[in-house]
Amino acid sequence: MSYELPQAGEIDRACCAALDTADPLAMWREAFVLPEGVAYLDGMSLGALPKAASQCVANVVDQQWGQGLVRSWNTAHWIDAPRRLGAKIAPLLGVHSDDVVVADSTSVNLFKLLVAALQLRPDRQVIVTESNNFPTDIYVARGVERLRGDAELKLVSPGKLDESLDSSVAVVLLTHVDFKSSQMHDMAAVTRRAHDCGALVLWDLSHSAGAFPLDLRGCSVDLAVGCSYKYLNGGPGAPAYVFVAPQLQGELDQPITAWMGHANPFDFSVDYAPAKDISRFLSGTPSIVGLAALEASLDIWTQVDLSVVRAKSVALSEFFIWIVERQLDSTAVQLASPRDAKQRGSHIAFQHPQGFAVIQALIERNVIGDFREPDLIRFGFAPLYMSFADVWRAATMLVEVIETRSWDQPRFRRRTTVT
Amino acid sequence: MSYELPQAGEIDRACCAALDTADPLAMWREAFVLPEGVAYLDGMSLGALPKAASQCVANVVDQQWGQGLVRSWNTAHWIDAPRRLGAKIAPLLGVHSDDVVVADSTSVNLFKLLVAALQLRPDRQVIVTESNNFPTDIYVARGVERLRGDAELKLVSPGKLDESLDSSVAVVLLTHVDFKSSQMHDMAAVTRRAHDCGALVLWDLSHSAGAFPLDLRGCSVDLAVGCSYKYLNGGPGAPAYVFVAPQLQGELDQPITAWMGHANPFDFSVDYAPAKDISRFLSGTPSIVGLAALEASLDIWTQVDLSVVRAKSVALSEFFIWIVERQLDSTAVQLASPRDAKQRGSHIAFQHPQGFAVIQALIERNVIGDFREPDLIRFGFAPLYMSFADVWRAATMLVEVIETRSWDQPRFRRRTTVT
Repeated sequence: MSYELPQAGEIDRACCAALDTADPLAMWREAFVLPEGVAYLDGMSLGALPKAASQCVANVVDQQWGQGLVRSWNTAHWIDAPRRLGAKIAPLLGVHSDDVVVADSTSVNLFKLLVAALQLRPDRQVIVTESNNFPTDIYVARGVERLRGDAELKLVSPGKLDESLDSSVAVVLLTHVDFKSSQMHDMAAVTRRAHDCGALVLWDLSHSAGAFPLDLRGCSVDLAVGCSYKYLNGGPGAPAYVFVAPQLQGELDQPITAWMGHANPFDFSVDYAPAKDISRFLSGTPSIVGLAALEASLDIWTQVDLSVVRAKSVALSEFFIWIVERQLDSTAVQLASPRDAKQRGSHIAFQHPQGFAVIQALIERNVIGDFREPDLIRFGFAPLYMSFADVWRAATMLVEVIETRSWDQPRFRRRTTVT
Repeated sequence: MSYELPQAGEIDRACCAALDTADPLAMWREAFVLPEGVAYLDGMSLGALPKAASQCVANVVDQQWGQGLVRSWNTAHWIDAPRRLGAKIAPLLGVHSDDVVVADSTSVNLFKLLVAALQLRPDRQVIVTESNNFPTDIYVARGVERLRGDAELKLVSPGKLDESLDSSVAVVLLTHVDFKSSQMHDMAAVTRRAHDCGALVLWDLSHSAGAFPLDLRGCSVDLAVGCSYKYLNGGPGAPAYVFVAPQLQGELDQPITAWMGHANPFDFSVDYAPAKDISRFLSGTPSIVGLAALEASLDIWTQVDLSVVRAKSVALSEFFIWIVERQLDSTAVQLASPRDAKQRGSHIAFQHPQGFAVIQALIERNVIGDFREPDLIRFGFAPLYMSFADVWRAATMLVEVIETRSWDQPRFRRRTTVT
């Protein structure tokens, strides 16, 4: 599947319409709720609402909880939800359905896996990550370092990972796609080099899963976590997931041992015996209402070819860059993402010294992207619900806001924003 | 406020009607969804659905997520939800609104606080709990014991706590109301004795909050956690809460350090600096959809006098016991809860050798209680949505099922059940 873009000189509104007409994913837009008149380019922060998610949540609340009450743990299969949803995420990661489970937040899961990885490599003490990793991932690793006493977190400069790989490294922790620049790691190569030095690899896939095909199995990845509220459209703060390679599941002991991870949770024995499979990475009771929205969204993902999603994402982002760069020179705005689409995830970033105000001016014009410190404006491409017309509108509006200095208003001064 | 029960000899359907007519909490039943014809006595496992929760969830999903999208983190105040909901739980615990936060599951919060408590008492290694504590609380403590290496979990027999309190004890972990027998600890006395030996006290309030007034501040409690899906009606797997006494908040370091617990979460710095207040006990992003149901329910609780709730709970449970014991002798069924209501939480348990089948036979008759190994049948009293007529029906049906041996059917044989 390819999306044939016209030459940059020929781009106009009519060519957007032609691209949208030819788009094999166009029909999926109807499966999502999008506010009238809004061009939404922030799906890498919070994915849009699938219409089915709204219905599924209402059914879980009104029927399963309201009418079924406690019986629904069995009759509505709530008890199986962490495994059932994990199995639906697995194909998006390129792994077997038994090797993923949905649980807790990304941070809590990172904590579990980092502690477990250090225990599996008792003769090694070092966690290596990059200094530009997602800050909260670094915070979790710092917490593990302080907790363990004998562990050491090494922050290396981007691109300097290889120099840090030696026999002291227990685990390499990386986010696959950089949340700022969108730079994508070569998962296969990094995993191989880490394995060559005897370390485990733990990938954060929050900006990857649902955006393009992944092949964790082919890359021999050991461990992965990710959130489900970005490209997976699970809703604000939707539960996260854990992948553990099958050969490690029986060996890894995660520290937050609670009833959902027990081999026989209904025996209510005082002794803890971890489940022998991926279920041992569960801890307490999950938010069933939170899971309901995610499940409805995952049922969309099972019908979609991720290679087509990726092809459209690349086309949308290239299109955006072309429009912006045709009209603005690099003194006005500068691409802060790799120019080669193969090295990017599904968002792009530009640098602008007044980035915060630029984003506010765009939001006021119903174009939603976001800002990241110190000067980055980000635009995400979620191919299931975005059109080339959206991109046309967003990019031309960005050009207008910058050319006319529309951002230069007191009402666009700095406030807090959220991941 | 008192609920005047008639003498046992005079109890009949008419007297139930009179009690319901005089009940000052009767109007609250309309605030809940209850299936037609069902007597629900399992609110100590999963509380019923508040009608407002259904509306609140729909609003969060359809309006705040669907229309507001990522903007709702600020415009709909999602970012403040953990503190805002914590402040609404605080009065139910008898503490200041700044000292409670909603986060994660009960298990994850227990883990955080146990690790933090051990770090605060570096010259002590022992976690003490009772062998009949809720099994998952014991599992969490076992995980902390294994993780730390130098920590030791001591399981003491019920009633033998005092003998274990010495200068090696860092923290006493107890569930306030026993999930089986409903036996309630004397929070003030146990906390005082633990403090006398220099230990911290961590209470699990899962079977307490929302069932009767609590006075954690008056009892000088250090730490507490609890789930919100039982008496607080937050929905299946609703997020849990954490209380930390104000003077300890700045001293306790919890191990799962992530962005929500950062002093300046929007700076995205690589250094972790914990918030100085109760927010430091947060970790990752919470399920906003899961929180929505809980918030609607908590808005009911702010309007209710818990001493009246308690008075009605006592009356309902006494009424149940009277009906059962008037018609069945102790060879048929035996009260497994304290006879003195002051020593009970808001449920009661009876022993019956075929308890599982008895509960199944009751469920088939639209009377919902639950079963706990090995032979306990439990009935919970949630005064906001239960009537004396419900209790009449449930208790007389229990008598009938046992007298007629209706439980003795192949279809009522053992399957799994859920907390």
